[in-house]
Amino acid sequence: MKLTASDIKNEGEFKVYGIVNHVRELGPKKFIIITDGKDILQVVYEGNKRVKRGDSISAVGNAFFDKRAPRGIELRAKDIEILNEIKEESFDEWSIKRMSLDKKIKYRSISLRIPEFYKIFEIYAKVTHYFREFFINLGYLEIFTPKVVKMGTESGAEVFSILYFDKEAFLAQSPQLYKQMMLASGLKGVFEFGHYYRAEASKTKRHLTEFYCLDVEINYVESLDDVMKVLEDAIKYVLDKFNLKIEKIPILTFDEAKEILEKNGIKTKKDLTTEGEKFIGDYVKENFNSDFVFITEFPFDVKPFYVMKKDDGKSYSFDLLFKGLEIVSGAKREHRYEILINQIKEKKINPERMYWYLETFKHGIPPHGGFGLGIDRFVKQMLNLDDIRECVLYPRDPDTLEP
Amino acid sequence: MKLTASDIKNEGEFKVYGIVNHVRELGPKKFIIITDGKDILQVVYEGNKRVKRGDSISAVGNAFFDKRAPRGIELRAKDIEILNEIKEESFDEWSIKRMSLDKKIKYRSISLRIPEFYKIFEIYAKVTHYFREFFINLGYLEIFTPKVVKMGTESGAEVFSILYFDKEAFLAQSPQLYKQMMLASGLKGVFEFGHYYRAEASKTKRHLTEFYCLDVEINYVESLDDVMKVLEDAIKYVLDKFNLKIEKIPILTFDEAKEILEKNGIKTKKDLTTEGEKFIGDYVKENFNSDFVFITEFPFDVKPFYVMKKDDGKSYSFDLLFKGLEIVSGAKREHRYEILINQIKEKKINPERMYWYLETFKHGIPPHGGFGLGIDRFVKQMLNLDDIRECVLYPRDPDTLEP
Repeated sequence: MKLTASDIKNEGEFKVYGIVNHVRELGPKKFIIITDGKDILQVVYEGNKRVKRGDSISAVGNAFFDKRAPRGIELRAKDIEILNEIKEESFDEWSIKRMSLDKKIKYRSISLRIPEFYKIFEIYAKVTHYFREFFINLGYLEIFTPKVVKMGTESGAEVFSILYFDKEAFLAQSPQLYKQMMLASGLKGVFEFGHYYRAEASKTKRHLTEFYCLDVEINYVESLDDVMKVLEDAIKYVLDKFNLKIEKIPILTFDEAKEILEKNGIKTKKDLTTEGEKFIGDYVKENFNSDFVFITEFPFDVKPFYVMKKDDGKSYSFDLLFKGLEIVSGAKREHRYEILINQIKEKKINPERMYWYLETFKHGIPPHGGFGLGIDRFVKQMLNLDDIRECVLYPRDPDTLEP
Repeated sequence: MKLTASDIKNEGEFKVYGIVNHVRELGPKKFIIITDGKDILQVVYEGNKRVKRGDSISAVGNAFFDKRAPRGIELRAKDIEILNEIKEESFDEWSIKRMSLDKKIKYRSISLRIPEFYKIFEIYAKVTHYFREFFINLGYLEIFTPKVVKMGTESGAEVFSILYFDKEAFLAQSPQLYKQMMLASGLKGVFEFGHYYRAEASKTKRHLTEFYCLDVEINYVESLDDVMKVLEDAIKYVLDKFNLKIEKIPILTFDEAKEILEKNGIKTKKDLTTEGEKFIGDYVKENFNSDFVFITEFPFDVKPFYVMKKDDGKSYSFDLLFKGLEIVSGAKREHRYEILINQIKEKKINPERMYWYLETFKHGIPPHGGFGLGIDRFVKQMLNLDDIRECVLYPRDPDTLEP
């Protein structure tokens, strides 16, 4: 008999556990609201023990349906036990709700005593569970690859360096090279969940220096559509679990998106800007009633070496925007050894630095493609949160290294 | 109609995909063994196209049961398509099986063309899935906490340092402080899967510098037994999925284990040595017919500050050995703010460095306990592998930073 506040659903005798969120005295009766994050429960107690907000207690008694109680149920305690008595009263619900985001992060777990804040992190976990379930059902292998690597994936700067004994190493920006290499096994597909890192000094509401991603790489693809189809099915599968239905995701080529933006006086650079992505998000909402849009065929110039080039200088690549924010980047990959070497050189990378990656391709790899999906961004957009930090327990940004 | 080698189970027409593992010509017929890692399939082809080991192909035809084929089934191809033709033939099965472990790691994905090597990583993934399933079923929240932290968890050295913009940061050795803090929410329990780091320069068959762990923290525990019970149930749940049954895990106190070792002329230090653990592993196998043993009540001296101390100088702690190797370390934690501060000071740590951790405890946290389980070690022992690197795709050790 060991239950927490949210487990109580029926009449009967129970022993429940929780943290005190609120105490109100009415004559000899104490109305104690306890929480386990997921839910709250009213405990009615008539004894002499004194409790306060933040104390941990257990209570034994009978549960009764009572419309006046917060959840329509209350536990009438025969006795309570104080499991951890603290010195000073903790925050009340009102103070927690009024906290700035910065303060809420500092007291993150205390803020989870309010079920509406807990809910965000429950959804976050479930999003990862449903995505994983989808790819397990497809027969893909979940892989676990290193986050400490000899070099950054994309040649760029913006990597954090590590002192690895007497050598220099870096924090991985993505599992790109590893997930591709894995397909030389012949496997149908692989996926990985992991933390990745980008040493970008600017602080925005949609960037973190440490972010959590789902990476997928699919073997034997015949076209870019094959890759987009798997992604679209995965997203449908996950959103459906939350009773969110989506229709076929519209597709705009990069040139089409650019044209729309220019017609509306929005500047584009080599790539779409943040403002441009936001505008396109609104545009497809208005014209296609869709929260999602694929932008395809980016110039090879703005894409990394492993993306397959088109004859016209474009590439077999796509981004997926969710409510105007890029949450996925994907592509068909270049699987032909000689062409891959040329593309590496074209991007001014020394092929020697890619030795084991190239060696793997030399031994044969099927045509493949894949994508990386930012879980933090996905949840932010799904829940219409203003700041990505609202759904990350202990976020990392240029100013924040603790808690 | 898109299948890989392992999907073929019935007669009928199929299009299958795979990488060529072996080609044998017999008169006009080519017997092509393709693989998708999970399994192999014999494709019989009579056309003119030439394929070699390492080429990726698809084949269309009818599948027939045939006892002479490696899996008792073969695909008689109407046609095959070469999806990626490589220049030089790749390794044959015999060469892969003969590879040293170091070479196998370098060509890891190529080695997965042999189903027996693939199987190890499928089991690894499944071990994580079943553990996750167990804790989801218990109603625990899966959490995702930072791996880049302001300080090492356990005060000790052996941390990798990172240049975090203009500050110094470290790679997390465990999510210890975060998973404990999360319980101030009142939640029943939390768990996390993640990579952690230890900058130990010695290279052994059971250590990696980057390792993958399951961390669990359980709220409202009344005794150390509560923690050990959850762990034991979790391990039973996972092993049962692989049809491995275990009985009740025997328990030895640290003093009992020490006595057994000393009686048998094996030296003990403050803690058990590797040799000592191995001996105890054999001892419980012989005396209790158990692959597992709990060692409890280690001296507080050898345990970190957050472990609950006993009055006699011991602690409410345990290790779990699996075939003589420590795979889990766990404890009841100190939840009382004032005592916790004293223990921090006793371990010569400045409480200022633990500011947000302590602030969380000040606001109230239930009595709790938990453990960390090394997934790599668990799989190594479960499969009786000689070296932990055999079950880690791209391992990290003092000499190895690539691939």
